[in-house]
Amino acid sequence: MNEILELARQAGAVVRFVDRAALDRTAEGAVHQGCIGHCTDFEYSDIDDVLKTAEDRGEPPFIVILDGILDPHNFGSILRTAECGGVHGVVIGKNRQVPVTDTVIKVAEGAAEYVKVVRAVNVNDTIRYLKTHGVWVYALDAKGDDIYKADLSGGVALVVGAEGKGVSRLTKELCDGVLSLPMRGRINSLNASVAAALGIYRKLECDSAKV
Amino acid sequence: MNEILELARQAGAVVRFVDRAALDRTAEGAVHQGCIGHCTDFEYSDIDDVLKTAEDRGEPPFIVILDGILDPHNFGSILRTAECGGVHGVVIGKNRQVPVTDTVIKVAEGAAEYVKVVRAVNVNDTIRYLKTHGVWVYALDAKGDDIYKADLSGGVALVVGAEGKGVSRLTKELCDGVLSLPMRGRINSLNASVAAALGIYRKLECDSAKV
Repeated sequence: MNEILELARQAGAVVRFVDRAALDRTAEGAVHQGCIGHCTDFEYSDIDDVLKTAEDRGEPPFIVILDGILDPHNFGSILRTAECGGVHGVVIGKNRQVPVTDTVIKVAEGAAEYVKVVRAVNVNDTIRYLKTHGVWVYALDAKGDDIYKADLSGGVALVVGAEGKGVSRLTKELCDGVLSLPMRGRINSLNASVAAALGIYRKLECDSAKV
Repeated sequence: MNEILELARQAGAVVRFVDRAALDRTAEGAVHQGCIGHCTDFEYSDIDDVLKTAEDRGEPPFIVILDGILDPHNFGSILRTAECGGVHGVVIGKNRQVPVTDTVIKVAEGAAEYVKVVRAVNVNDTIRYLKTHGVWVYALDAKGDDIYKADLSGGVALVVGAEGKGVSRLTKELCDGVLSLPMRGRINSLNASVAAALGIYRKLECDSAKV
């Protein structure tokens, strides 16, 4: 294990120590021996590519930021909906976040080819950067203002939190606002990919109301 | 196999002949020998229970009808979102539709306890019945009117079609209207559970705009 760690550090790979349950989840049913390596030939973009895409299309930037999505099905589903909703780029963190794996690509049904994915060292830095570029950043969270009363037209980034945990405190504090989806039932918890979809389409609705 | 068929018929079970791929899918990875039996102690409701629930809550009926959803994850996800969105009941058909399995219950994260599920012999009959009870029935489909311009307040049932196939022709013709989600990308195909969620929350938005 020490040799693996040393090689990983030399190669500049991010090394994370997690519990067995997290390893099992990451292995997606495959056998592991206490250590999992991630490599991919998926080509990530950087945030300036995303802003340029928006500019080239003559649209205000529309970005989705994922704050620690661990389930590749959720991530893939979000990419698919983002593509359908005209999102210019999806930003993920390097830690506590599933990267673009084969499962993600499969679930995204082709969307991973078209939506830019940015892998940020720290999503909070990306949020600060976007704010200096005229993008309004909103967290989707259980306790916030009704998203159906908010005006999301113009340059917007939506932050979607981890399954079960929501958006982390520091990230929420950085955002320009916290928005909630109305809850009319007893379980009061939407799947992360469903919450993301509702946020994305609320933004589209605000844009078309302005036309 | 003939003995099984005879016993199934005696017991009044619905018998369906499908290809190997459909059997494999239904088995969800388990081994089968060309024949799969479904049994469950899940308690289905009937459509009058659903209408009564709405009446007891003093709300116009809000119903989701699934036209051939085969993926238990999609069905479970729809139940979860339906519960959060205050849907009174979800109607499924007896054929070409996954019933409430353990996977569905697990993915629904508790929602299967609270949302009534109706298993109709023929969903088209249910649609006709709902129309005579003052419920407006809309199909969600690729070619229809923009759902964000439709008024969905009042008693409404939303019909969600099968993955990849959409709502069947006859069912669509029975509906009072066909509604579409705007598409801004290239893949132009939303996951069935995402489309259902967007429909459910569009209905909630229309209701709260009326208050």
